[in-house]
Amino acid sequence: MASRSDRHGMTGDLEHFERVARWIDAYYADPYRFAVLSRSAPGDLRAALPADAPDEGEPFERIFADFERLIVPGITHWNHPRFFAYFAISAAPVTVLAEALTAALDVNAMLWRTSPAATELEEVVLDWLRRLLGLPATFHGIVYDTASISGFTALAAARESLGIDVRERGLAGRPDLPPLRVYLTEHTHSHVEKAAIALGVGRENVVRVPVDHAFAMQPAALERAIASDLERGFRPMCIAATVGTTSTTSCDPVPAIGAIARRYGVWLHVDAAYAGPAAIVPEFRFLLDGCDRADSLVLNPHKWMFVPVDLSVLYVRDPEMVRRAFSLVADYLATPEHDVRNYMDYGLQLGRRFRALKLWFVLRRYGVTAIREKYRAHVALAAEFAGWVRAEPGWAVVAPHPLSVVCFRHEPGGAAAAADAHNMRIVDAVNATGEAFLSATKLDGRVALRLAIGNERTTRDDVRTAWDLLRAAAATE
Amino acid sequence: MASRSDRHGMTGDLEHFERVARWIDAYYADPYRFAVLSRSAPGDLRAALPADAPDEGEPFERIFADFERLIVPGITHWNHPRFFAYFAISAAPVTVLAEALTAALDVNAMLWRTSPAATELEEVVLDWLRRLLGLPATFHGIVYDTASISGFTALAAARESLGIDVRERGLAGRPDLPPLRVYLTEHTHSHVEKAAIALGVGRENVVRVPVDHAFAMQPAALERAIASDLERGFRPMCIAATVGTTSTTSCDPVPAIGAIARRYGVWLHVDAAYAGPAAIVPEFRFLLDGCDRADSLVLNPHKWMFVPVDLSVLYVRDPEMVRRAFSLVADYLATPEHDVRNYMDYGLQLGRRFRALKLWFVLRRYGVTAIREKYRAHVALAAEFAGWVRAEPGWAVVAPHPLSVVCFRHEPGGAAAAADAHNMRIVDAVNATGEAFLSATKLDGRVALRLAIGNERTTRDDVRTAWDLLRAAAATE
Repeated sequence: MASRSDRHGMTGDLEHFERVARWIDAYYADPYRFAVLSRSAPGDLRAALPADAPDEGEPFERIFADFERLIVPGITHWNHPRFFAYFAISAAPVTVLAEALTAALDVNAMLWRTSPAATELEEVVLDWLRRLLGLPATFHGIVYDTASISGFTALAAARESLGIDVRERGLAGRPDLPPLRVYLTEHTHSHVEKAAIALGVGRENVVRVPVDHAFAMQPAALERAIASDLERGFRPMCIAATVGTTSTTSCDPVPAIGAIARRYGVWLHVDAAYAGPAAIVPEFRFLLDGCDRADSLVLNPHKWMFVPVDLSVLYVRDPEMVRRAFSLVADYLATPEHDVRNYMDYGLQLGRRFRALKLWFVLRRYGVTAIREKYRAHVALAAEFAGWVRAEPGWAVVAPHPLSVVCFRHEPGGAAAAADAHNMRIVDAVNATGEAFLSATKLDGRVALRLAIGNERTTRDDVRTAWDLLRAAAATE
Repeated sequence: MASRSDRHGMTGDLEHFERVARWIDAYYADPYRFAVLSRSAPGDLRAALPADAPDEGEPFERIFADFERLIVPGITHWNHPRFFAYFAISAAPVTVLAEALTAALDVNAMLWRTSPAATELEEVVLDWLRRLLGLPATFHGIVYDTASISGFTALAAARESLGIDVRERGLAGRPDLPPLRVYLTEHTHSHVEKAAIALGVGRENVVRVPVDHAFAMQPAALERAIASDLERGFRPMCIAATVGTTSTTSCDPVPAIGAIARRYGVWLHVDAAYAGPAAIVPEFRFLLDGCDRADSLVLNPHKWMFVPVDLSVLYVRDPEMVRRAFSLVADYLATPEHDVRNYMDYGLQLGRRFRALKLWFVLRRYGVTAIREKYRAHVALAAEFAGWVRAEPGWAVVAPHPLSVVCFRHEPGGAAAAADAHNMRIVDAVNATGEAFLSATKLDGRVALRLAIGNERTTRDDVRTAWDLLRAAAATE
């Protein structure tokens, strides 16, 4: 090894791979020694680190010792079987190997020629996924980093599809243009509204369509909103429907919404970032009913398909519209190949990591049958947890739970505001134990606690532990 | 190991870490067995892979064998000492270890509480970098994935700073608004124009300010453009100056441009994505002269600071403007901490990988002294190469080369169009050998070949090899 290091002027750090591999192995083997929610106080790490970078290089051992001593206690362990907050995620062990390879290869898959395998593997793997999801062959997949960027890209394409030549002429200083309108609900993920802000639509033009008792968009209300906007001379740009909202995993009725989108010629974007992957299970395929009529659809393998952050997938019916919205080919990026896809043409970002590798690894390593079983197990666990909550006096399930997330709260009686504070103290107490981490939301203005199952290593015992902690916290609160 | 795997329902894949580590070690030890530019033909990988994901899981050995057999031949080796295209990059070995840890931890650093160490390490490391660069303490750093996103964020903040309430009211359907104008040159990276398209500025409002003989923006022409726009009632939004353009690494005169920006009250964004890191070398500090007056400045550690793709840094004078442009806090993201930075408030993307870890690892492992030496060595190698070109009859250096990129061409005489085709055949012939990979650009309408040095393992022999190949190709062409 020494000769190699000398030969290439390297520092021999790869010799430390074994140390890192052992640490990662132990990390997976015994996650329970870590507090799920970090117990750091603000400023702890900052205070522990020097104000300046070192002049001279340090031995790897010292850096790694600091990683263990200073960084790990400041980590909130997303890759933990008792992480039940937001949407729970996992990095399958095989994906850690994939990410090490991705880092070593360090390719930028901006053009086909700058790594043909990265581009074509992306095409193949997204086609595998498309077929598993039962989406039409006309859907083209593109990998982005996050659902925020996937959604932004979809809305940018929707804007370009209006035929008002935003690309060339922009939106400002054009008295010919009406306000552009985006339709969503109060349960749509905030990234859609953020995209509307960024694209120059403006928050005033983000229309919150009322939801029904199950937190799903009301199609009749959507139609009224569009009709009213048209009467006022506004221009409907995009309807954002969600399959699996963040608070409750409620599902907007895509078939009915799609019919309205078609009738009025409005772009239909479907955010299935969390729930979409589950549609590879036959009994959950209904989740994507009507999505074959969508113009764009996002799902996040880094949420519920066991690949580490980040990897989001956008399917679009008309990739040319995305290209029109974004493509700019500088002289220094000109490329001799034809009939190849240069993914840099399909998004805001020129630079692109080789993200498809980890998805390919996990789909092959587990196989579709095993992934389906994991989803079934998660949904069954969530149902079981909901059953425990319902059976317990003073506790209530407060939203339908079609998938792996349950919204619930302790309802000992009394005023709503007091009950809200009481529930926040319960979840804070549970999180402070370090034994589990849950998050909260608001439904109809009232606090709801959420238990989100999604880590592939979560067992019934883990869920039971969370439930015991919740009841104990409520009892002593 | 078996008992762990059973206990946690895992597949024991981490046992294969050794296999992957050995491969990566060999990859670094002997890069010369790989063709730098992949020899794949379009469709090669697609044809080699099945149409569907496997139903049943496969052994890791089989997947990894396919990685070696199918993926690696389709890789263009960015992490190769003879990669001289675009901007040459490297993944320092220690950063591969960091990325493996990042994948295993799998944190989403969207809120401080969702990984305090990820947030605070980002603050600390970006402060280290800021001090090394000699930027004011008032500059706040934020990590994004790519310069495209950093630049987009800067322009979004510039738009918000206009005081026309784009966030709430949008840009369309407002007869009160004039066209918004962005100033750059033909050498500005295309991501800035892409950002202008996305933000609703429109390509018509992207003003190309003329450059001088050294491909640098002419301040007097910039001032005339702004004055003329103001006369026409247009609204200047942002001046994008570049320190180290992509084609030639030319540097726009930031001090003079900054004076104009201040005089007219226009946001000054500096794109130092490639060249910025070199400013940590005292004799290259001049690169950032005047940047203390910029409103935003981007530099990319994943270009010339030895971390793998992706990691871009944006410094902004007024982070509140970025927050105003983007922040939206949904109920499910509410967080009890105060006086902490929740980075999700500062960008389009909610999800955020733990990117600061790899930068911390490399800064500590190498130390500042060694990193400065690497930059000096790269710049000296580029100067030496330029000397060879100048000394060779029929060859010419066609742009100043202040840093590590040289633009040149073979000029055997004859018509310009024929010379352009001749030079493209030369570079294609060199790239087809697999021994080196260079890219081309156009300067004043004529083809220029580029030799970009940036991989930390590039030696004088590597550059010499490229030069020998170029001359041989020109001789036989």
